[in-house]
Amino acid sequence: MSARPDAWSFKQVIVVRRDLRMGTGKVAAQVAHAAVAAVERVARGHRDWLAGWWADGQPKVVLQVPGAPELDEVGARAGRAGLPVTVVYDRGLTQVPAGTATCLAIGPAPADAIDAVTGDLRLL
Amino acid sequence: MSARPDAWSFKQVIVVRRDLRMGTGKVAAQVAHAAVAAVERVARGHRDWLAGWWADGQPKVVLQVPGAPELDEVGARAGRAGLPVTVVYDRGLTQVPAGTATCLAIGPAPADAIDAVTGDLRLL
Repeated sequence: MSARPDAWSFKQVIVVRRDLRMGTGKVAAQVAHAAVAAVERVARGHRDWLAGWWADGQPKVVLQVPGAPELDEVGARAGRAGLPVTVVYDRGLTQVPAGTATCLAIGPAPADAIDAVTGDLRLL
Repeated sequence: MSARPDAWSFKQVIVVRRDLRMGTGKVAAQVAHAAVAAVERVARGHRDWLAGWWADGQPKVVLQVPGAPELDEVGARAGRAGLPVTVVYDRGLTQVPAGTATCLAIGPAPADAIDAVTGDLRLL
């Protein structure tokens, strides 16, 4: 299933590596880390985006990439587009080695700017 | 695998219903909704807990319950213990009917108080 167009003005996208073969609970915790840290970050730089995102119902979309190179690439692309990128590095207590980049959040930010970067990625 | 004792002073626990058979990405988005909304809530009532939780590295633990009655029960127990509980009700755009309670967050709050409520639940 591809990421579908939607009616939100603002959204947050979290992109997860598939190659780490993390369990469902592990993925959920990593995505939650990314989401919370990204909100704190955007709160310091773009309160207007955050307010718009809350008004939209804080939409979140979880997407996938095959591995680390693709995660790096989407993060770099988002950064070049001026979007706030928050990468989660695992502490390595379970399932993956310490310092592994497991996922990254883009936004909360304008949805069309995010779509321009992540529109070709598949839903997790 | 049972939820293990740990060294954190503060943590956030997110409890997820298993019976809804949500996909990994759906679970991750629901858990992230709970985590973010709960942080906003605790920021208004217990800034000291939030600060302690950030200092601990914002630990999150994702647990499971079989279904809605057990989710209600753990939420009620946490509420009676004076812990902040944030329930996520899905908007029903995908996978589950609108208004379905999919998961709930407890905390960020003192870890021992949370353990007294959720210590018997299994990791997701």
